[in-house]
Amino acid sequence: MTVRDVPAALLTGPVHVVGAGLLGTSIGLACRRGGLSVYLSDVQDDHVRTASGLGAGDPYDGQPVQLVVVAVPPDHLGAEITAALASGSVVTDVGSVKSQPLREVTGDRSRYVGGHPMAGSEQSGPLAATAVLFDGRPWAVTPHAESDPAALALVIALAELCGAVPVLLTPEEHDRAVARTSHLPHLLAALVAGRLAEAPEKHLALSGQGVRDVTRIAAGDPQLWQQIVSANAAAVLELLGEVRGELDTLIGAMGAGSREGVVAVLEQGVTGTRAIPGKHGGPVTPMRPVFVSVPDHPGELARLFFDAGASEVNIEDVHIDHDPGRPVGLVELLVAEDRAEHLLGSLEARGWTVHR
Amino acid sequence: MTVRDVPAALLTGPVHVVGAGLLGTSIGLACRRGGLSVYLSDVQDDHVRTASGLGAGDPYDGQPVQLVVVAVPPDHLGAEITAALASGSVVTDVGSVKSQPLREVTGDRSRYVGGHPMAGSEQSGPLAATAVLFDGRPWAVTPHAESDPAALALVIALAELCGAVPVLLTPEEHDRAVARTSHLPHLLAALVAGRLAEAPEKHLALSGQGVRDVTRIAAGDPQLWQQIVSANAAAVLELLGEVRGELDTLIGAMGAGSREGVVAVLEQGVTGTRAIPGKHGGPVTPMRPVFVSVPDHPGELARLFFDAGASEVNIEDVHIDHDPGRPVGLVELLVAEDRAEHLLGSLEARGWTVHR
Repeated sequence: MTVRDVPAALLTGPVHVVGAGLLGTSIGLACRRGGLSVYLSDVQDDHVRTASGLGAGDPYDGQPVQLVVVAVPPDHLGAEITAALASGSVVTDVGSVKSQPLREVTGDRSRYVGGHPMAGSEQSGPLAATAVLFDGRPWAVTPHAESDPAALALVIALAELCGAVPVLLTPEEHDRAVARTSHLPHLLAALVAGRLAEAPEKHLALSGQGVRDVTRIAAGDPQLWQQIVSANAAAVLELLGEVRGELDTLIGAMGAGSREGVVAVLEQGVTGTRAIPGKHGGPVTPMRPVFVSVPDHPGELARLFFDAGASEVNIEDVHIDHDPGRPVGLVELLVAEDRAEHLLGSLEARGWTVHR
Repeated sequence: MTVRDVPAALLTGPVHVVGAGLLGTSIGLACRRGGLSVYLSDVQDDHVRTASGLGAGDPYDGQPVQLVVVAVPPDHLGAEITAALASGSVVTDVGSVKSQPLREVTGDRSRYVGGHPMAGSEQSGPLAATAVLFDGRPWAVTPHAESDPAALALVIALAELCGAVPVLLTPEEHDRAVARTSHLPHLLAALVAGRLAEAPEKHLALSGQGVRDVTRIAAGDPQLWQQIVSANAAAVLELLGEVRGELDTLIGAMGAGSREGVVAVLEQGVTGTRAIPGKHGGPVTPMRPVFVSVPDHPGELARLFFDAGASEVNIEDVHIDHDPGRPVGLVELLVAEDRAEHLLGSLEARGWTVHR
């Protein structure tokens, strides 16, 4: 369920962000960009100083606020949400798990509505923050049975002010969803990455883009992720049990030389990759890459994009593969499948070395 | 072991590529780019027609050649390599597994040296081919005990002509290496993706970049990947057994509420991600993203890169996040950590809306 009809003007501030890490500082920056007053607090003074220096808000000093955003690690969510409710403000949080913290919240729970922006990074801390972290991303908003509709509207307005797309779920639905789309992928990425830890260097020289993509998120902070998966243990354990069952099936099939058994596991994987929606909730458009050799001189990239722009083809994404040892880099332009031929011809006519 | 001292001039062609799929056609295109005559054959006539139409070479008609490159699925490698050796030429292949096909090769095996470029895509077929597929990628070259040094030199020259970095390994070493860096990641990505296949659509709306990255390779062709992992069953089963052990440990730790047990698994994952070498074999440079709002008009990207170029900061990579529903896109410029502040200030001074 996507919500698009709450006027952002509901949220007038001030906003108090508790926890000036990556998410809290990014929310502060987004709210400041939206013209709101923001106050910041954190158990680490230097986080507040850093976030404040980046323009995410001013140090909190007991001011009354319209909305408190609790952005602390999962272990502290229940206590910090409870403390924030005592101020009389509406309270939300950005924790990765929703049911367990809710059970720990006491006080006037009607003013609390949980939230969880699906954005982040394997980096952490205020220095990695950016006002555009949430741009176009889903932001789960998780009202519970006692939540007040006005509090819900305010939390939806926060998500929209941050440029995100609010998605309404119950806390229980949310936790089952992220167990599948976030916690399980993280744990299995860690298991794959763990196998690399003791591999001979020579073997790792064969690492391609595939293993880099599969293991990227496993670089995340182990203490933080331990708190996240532990707070969602029931839903995560159910999925881990399913995976163990499938792994046993796969090991059995490979051991017995059953090609059908292996294919069945792989086919279910293909079906799963197709179930993921497009990045902005829309359908997945078929793309094709167009590769261009670009001399490593200042201005060459600009010239390429100028010529690509003149071809009237929308560049959907770009990758630069830049080997420091070579005078020419490779730029991959991702465009709609049915525009690739036109772009290839057009760039070639303008003197670029393009590659099919 | 990286090899850089074989003169590419050794390889003068013609080259006969057997199997005009993604890899075979890409090799044909790269060899043609290098000025060599290329002949193509495939059990599917339309693959040869397509590859030929793309400029990857001419249909094979029994011509004598210097080098045969066998680019067929794993099940057919042994037979096709044996058939190619009968022509009297040097023979290599690009199969994902090296030991089992070698056991099936008969004839004058001294003229056979295996190869395996670490490049590809979840796409397949000649239409996805490109001459730059191998640019800067590792290309495993796997001589066996009977391989002739002249044949080895020729296969190294092919890898270099294709722009790849040859890495010498025995067939057995290669198979153990790719079990870890390619086959295991693929199978576990399929297990994660498989859990998405039956998820409610609403849950999948919370999919972020993490699950997309972890599952991307699971979109690969199940029949092809079944052949790959089955041909490397012993090495893959050993690793799957390790993963099952670690998964049991993780399930036990989470079930017992042992935070240390969960952290240990996650920490080994972090260690593993750090063991992967940089893309071009060098060290991993710390990068920082700089986000810029870019109006969705032709010419704006060119202007951005012009201004970025004028700032004298090397753009290492770019991502465009382009929501069709919005008039302004978000461009992420990846630059060396210590150049990010300079670029931010410089772009801001030129009127860009930058985001920290």
